[in-house]
Amino acid sequence: MQAKVSWQQKMHFVGLGDSGHEVHLDAKKEIGDEDLGARPMELLLMGLGGCTGIDIVMILDKMRIAYDRVDVLLDAKRAPNPPEKFTEITLTYEIDAIDADVDKVIRAVKLSQEKYCSASHSLSATLSAVVVVNGHKVYDDRS
Amino acid sequence: MQAKVSWQQKMHFVGLGDSGHEVHLDAKKEIGDEDLGARPMELLLMGLGGCTGIDIVMILDKMRIAYDRVDVLLDAKRAPNPPEKFTEITLTYEIDAIDADVDKVIRAVKLSQEKYCSASHSLSATLSAVVVVNGHKVYDDRS
Repeated sequence: MQAKVSWQQKMHFVGLGDSGHEVHLDAKKEIGDEDLGARPMELLLMGLGGCTGIDIVMILDKMRIAYDRVDVLLDAKRAPNPPEKFTEITLTYEIDAIDADVDKVIRAVKLSQEKYCSASHSLSATLSAVVVVNGHKVYDDRS
Repeated sequence: MQAKVSWQQKMHFVGLGDSGHEVHLDAKKEIGDEDLGARPMELLLMGLGGCTGIDIVMILDKMRIAYDRVDVLLDAKRAPNPPEKFTEITLTYEIDAIDADVDKVIRAVKLSQEKYCSASHSLSATLSAVVVVNGHKVYDDRS
């Protein structure tokens, strides 16, 4: 898999991968950017969320569970000193699926985390999962 | 640092982080998507490229080295079986900087990789760097 990021001006880059979709990146305002795109570390979190989110909808579809909402919230702690890498990331899955078997929804999240999600396994941080189904927290593996 | 991805339809998600820039994500065509955004694993690569790319332009600026082009090409190998995580990523830095001291450009790349790049240190893959200055390969740490 290949991708490329190309400098535009100041701290602004444009990313392009095999899929052909451009993504704009920029540094945080404090270091003099013009805020023309998402922060690089945000893209890592979004990539993680999208990866596991796509897993979830694929697994729920296979389980024939109907859903109205699948949001994945990502809350990352970073090391205090440079390079300030991600150390812990909590993924909160907010899923609205009326009449769904809650155990099956939890199973879908575990399958993504443990077996399928390429991004989860490509990051070095410790990951935790919280599952909220129809507004009720039904699973939380944070120690 | 926080971000969120929200399911839209089929395999299409929209990501949003603290910076406020939306990023569209979608699954590869083969699994029935409508190709409405970048692939999640591409975002990991672009985040990595943007992170180190921003480092490079900041360091070159501090070194008072003028540049016309900074492209970072990312070539990732993935494990053959699910979860198909990234195992090796080669970053090729293509930098056009007429009259630049090549050793300083190499030093900028090493500083990013070894000290500053949050994304490099947040991924579990083995990273390698190739540096091309004004069309000439001047550094390659692949074993």
